[in-house]
Amino acid sequence: MIVELISTGSELLLGDTINTNAAWLAREFNRLGYSVTHQTTIGDNSQRMCDSFITAAGRADIVVSTGGLGPTQGDITRDSLAIAVGSELVKNEMARCEVEEFFKKRKREVPPASEREMMALPDSTILHNSCGVAPGIAYYDEATETTFILLPGPPAEMKAVYTETVVPYLQQHFGNQGVVLSERYAVYGYRELVLENMFMDLVKSQSNPTIAFLIKNGYIELRITAHGESKTAAELLLAPWKKYIEERIPTDRRRSLTDNIEETVAKALLVRQGTVATAESCTAGLVGKRLTNLPGSSAYFMGGILSYSNDVKARLLEVPEEMLVEYGAVSEQVAKAMAEGTRRSVGTTYGISTTGIAGPGGGTAEKPVGLVWFGVSGPNGTRAFRNDFIGNRESIRQSAAEYALHCLLVYMQEERK
Amino acid sequence: MIVELISTGSELLLGDTINTNAAWLAREFNRLGYSVTHQTTIGDNSQRMCDSFITAAGRADIVVSTGGLGPTQGDITRDSLAIAVGSELVKNEMARCEVEEFFKKRKREVPPASEREMMALPDSTILHNSCGVAPGIAYYDEATETTFILLPGPPAEMKAVYTETVVPYLQQHFGNQGVVLSERYAVYGYRELVLENMFMDLVKSQSNPTIAFLIKNGYIELRITAHGESKTAAELLLAPWKKYIEERIPTDRRRSLTDNIEETVAKALLVRQGTVATAESCTAGLVGKRLTNLPGSSAYFMGGILSYSNDVKARLLEVPEEMLVEYGAVSEQVAKAMAEGTRRSVGTTYGISTTGIAGPGGGTAEKPVGLVWFGVSGPNGTRAFRNDFIGNRESIRQSAAEYALHCLLVYMQEERK
Repeated sequence: MIVELISTGSELLLGDTINTNAAWLAREFNRLGYSVTHQTTIGDNSQRMCDSFITAAGRADIVVSTGGLGPTQGDITRDSLAIAVGSELVKNEMARCEVEEFFKKRKREVPPASEREMMALPDSTILHNSCGVAPGIAYYDEATETTFILLPGPPAEMKAVYTETVVPYLQQHFGNQGVVLSERYAVYGYRELVLENMFMDLVKSQSNPTIAFLIKNGYIELRITAHGESKTAAELLLAPWKKYIEERIPTDRRRSLTDNIEETVAKALLVRQGTVATAESCTAGLVGKRLTNLPGSSAYFMGGILSYSNDVKARLLEVPEEMLVEYGAVSEQVAKAMAEGTRRSVGTTYGISTTGIAGPGGGTAEKPVGLVWFGVSGPNGTRAFRNDFIGNRESIRQSAAEYALHCLLVYMQEERK
Repeated sequence: MIVELISTGSELLLGDTINTNAAWLAREFNRLGYSVTHQTTIGDNSQRMCDSFITAAGRADIVVSTGGLGPTQGDITRDSLAIAVGSELVKNEMARCEVEEFFKKRKREVPPASEREMMALPDSTILHNSCGVAPGIAYYDEATETTFILLPGPPAEMKAVYTETVVPYLQQHFGNQGVVLSERYAVYGYRELVLENMFMDLVKSQSNPTIAFLIKNGYIELRITAHGESKTAAELLLAPWKKYIEERIPTDRRRSLTDNIEETVAKALLVRQGTVATAESCTAGLVGKRLTNLPGSSAYFMGGILSYSNDVKARLLEVPEEMLVEYGAVSEQVAKAMAEGTRRSVGTTYGISTTGIAGPGGGTAEKPVGLVWFGVSGPNGTRAFRNDFIGNRESIRQSAAEYALHCLLVYMQEERK
């Protein structure tokens, strides 16, 4: 089945906002076996929206728009679709309930402008929005045999509506589209070219499955993808390739991307009834932020100390001043002492630390920009890890936070042996 | 003059790559006074490319494509344009020189596949590519009175060709298109609808300038945009609108988006020779991360305490246990005590704190998900701020980090009075 995406919003055509919604939706639809053939961006202009809806309906089975469902005068997506299909907007009972419920939960009056958000084409399906006011709308146009799906523009709302409501709607109306299955690994501590050479046989023979290497912050994503008529068929195609990968890359340098690393860390800590604290220098809070991405993280994350200055390292983490002078703040010794310090001070099972040179200044021949030391302290003593990241300040810091979580996992996995 | 952008590449339609080229080109063309009305993304498919070129030529004066100019079999943009306008490809002397020069400089033979990169439509202008092999192509089609500009897909090459070659080409062929100028504000503590109502007179009368409201994490971006024959003409159009905005929104609830907030905070701290420490609960490090986004932030950011658990709040920040019991961790009192605690413990001029309910669980009728209290402590005592954010866990936390920086700025601005 053919899907077209229409993104609306003048901020996209002005170039002020990068269109991340289109890529996200494209990936999700492809995963479900749909084929995305066109993506169009237009401004908040009724005539152009109409034309785009009509053109897309002539080519695609499903037309998905994002944006323009809010309460302001510039939110004209519903109106434009109604004009395009020669219909009109009527107040929708279900949409009215959704909007009223949203404000009721927040103990606020429904603003008069939100009446717009209760409107829909006749016989629309209202798509619940758990993150915002305006619900999405699904509408089937008999004349063009096209299903229109209108989603809100803010990414968090768009994703919530898609995941919670559109996916079941698609399953109910269009059934199984075949399966595109990927197996994704995070691979740590290799450069991209080295990794490609390790798998040159697969790179050269690829058609189905395919193999791809994507540089991410702190790791390379290695992805194999197969297209089969069923999940089992796709799994059978992937199986031998999974085996090659797992044979060639040692377990402590890869993990499956099925779970995100926050989930993997959470599970490992919960199973051990362990708690963790951070001591962060170059990441300055990013590791703590990552460790609390999941709801319920207060079960294992207690807190931490951001020790950007040496004074804080010495006073709050009890890193010996002589050690800071002798080895410098970015060193194996200080990384270990920081991890021990936060573990002791916060009173947790594990302590993890980062200290490095995020740049762009501050690098030397001996300690270049991108060098980061990590410490992990726990019941089995203290270990240090190091890595040399390539990138700008932001990507080095993101990479370091990712790698800190990886170090904690490696430490916990070693414990079991 | 109307410009349309066509992005080609299956990786865009698969959602593996986010289309940053389109936003970049849109911004650049808008800056030069051109009007970008459509942006379309299609895969490496000849028929769809032809259709897109023909459709775009019917609407626009200039059609700009990115991608598909390389040497592989999948690079079919030139061929598709030739079919679309009923022409053919011929070897172009200028393009041949460009390609040969590229390899000559690198002391390499011209690979046979690069013959494709020497082809162009008859009477094309070849656009020099200082970053890669394939030059861009500009071609004027008399039948449709449309100028087609084909650019390479890799962002660095696309930008180099645009900046070095396309801009002078546009100047030469189309002259001065005037100037589009925007003034952008971050506005804090208003709902979108309230803000729109405050400016309904401008919303209703808008044509040039225009006004727009965009929901961001922690603030609403208010943008006014004017199109004038010169920079001065555009500034004159914007001036009265700037005045309305600055009269209607108090200074402590807005800032110009010319600087990012990290820069504004850095400047305010440096001018006061002030230092800052964080005490973070719901943001768990995100405020510290934001305060260290800029190189050189060690001049004012000393460190902080992530106090996710009440135990850490009590022990490391000396928040009285009775206070935690009586008011709860998410309260005005605790926010203030946290800010005071980190200021005292780290030893800084200012302390800032966050404590809130990031969700999705943990909300009550009295303290719903999205409620965040902020504390700022400094030489002029301690102040608390509150906000109620809408969104998911991630956007609530991002909004809270943004708002914490805003609170610190407000506190420092008040000092001057």
